[in-house]
Amino acid sequence: MTLDADLFKRGMRRLAAGVSLITTYEHGERHGMAATSVCSVSADPPTLLVCVNRTATSHAVIGRAGFFCVNLLAEKDDELARRFSTPADRESRFSGREWTTLVTEAPALVGSLASFDCEVIESVDVDSHTVFIGRVKAIELWHNDIVPLVYLDGRFDTLVGGRQIKDRA
Amino acid sequence: MTLDADLFKRGMRRLAAGVSLITTYEHGERHGMAATSVCSVSADPPTLLVCVNRTATSHAVIGRAGFFCVNLLAEKDDELARRFSTPADRESRFSGREWTTLVTEAPALVGSLASFDCEVIESVDVDSHTVFIGRVKAIELWHNDIVPLVYLDGRFDTLVGGRQIKDRA
Repeated sequence: MTLDADLFKRGMRRLAAGVSLITTYEHGERHGMAATSVCSVSADPPTLLVCVNRTATSHAVIGRAGFFCVNLLAEKDDELARRFSTPADRESRFSGREWTTLVTEAPALVGSLASFDCEVIESVDVDSHTVFIGRVKAIELWHNDIVPLVYLDGRFDTLVGGRQIKDRA
Repeated sequence: MTLDADLFKRGMRRLAAGVSLITTYEHGERHGMAATSVCSVSADPPTLLVCVNRTATSHAVIGRAGFFCVNLLAEKDDELARRFSTPADRESRFSGREWTTLVTEAPALVGSLASFDCEVIESVDVDSHTVFIGRVKAIELWHNDIVPLVYLDGRFDTLVGGRQIKDRA
């Protein structure tokens, strides 16, 4: 039985998801893409996964470099998310914001909701995509305003209750 | 370098995610759990993944049965999500709502935002969890009200712009 890809896409438009920038680095050049396919896998040891389309430039770079950083975006980062979703000069995407590095050379977005710097421990090829499973080597929680950028039904949105939280450290 | 599991959990609380019920079936008994770790993998052929803790009852059942159904929840399903998040008689969780089956024997929630009925094509064990990769065999979009139940920072929430959409069929 073959199921219609359009029906699948219509269904998946109903899965609300936080928007992240997945970044990596190779030969002096930064790469990045906007993504909603990010999942927590294991807390101990800290591990997450990202699903990346093989046609994305970042796909091959992550495969070769063996590391990536997941940066969770805030609602106010919607323009940044759009910039990372459209083809353009790779480096210009990174201009106008402060970036740093944590453990790997992957760019970490200063002021994002959180940055998870990861080393790839396993890659699983599934049809058009690769599931990169990353061991988290460093985490930065830049501040405690967590009003997230969320994607649903082809649009950016945010939560009713997004708010300043108290640090639970 | 060992990274603190608590810091990872605090970071992951900032990843907004739609809430789903993952269901399965074995020996005349329905099983299910609430989950936020669901990702689209590939649209053609339609494929998704779920990350399931090995300690969850549903984990072993999905492994043996080889199928599961992902049901995306609406904001008004918050009590149902709580019921599926707390230990209780497995079958009583399913009472009070209408369930059906699509292609596999996994329960599909009538009236959810969408149900994706899947056969497991690959299982990847990663520390405390297993990533089940499922080929989607059937999809049901029950209606066009997509006001999703979203989890952030330990609480249920919904989107500012959740709304009735026009069917794009």
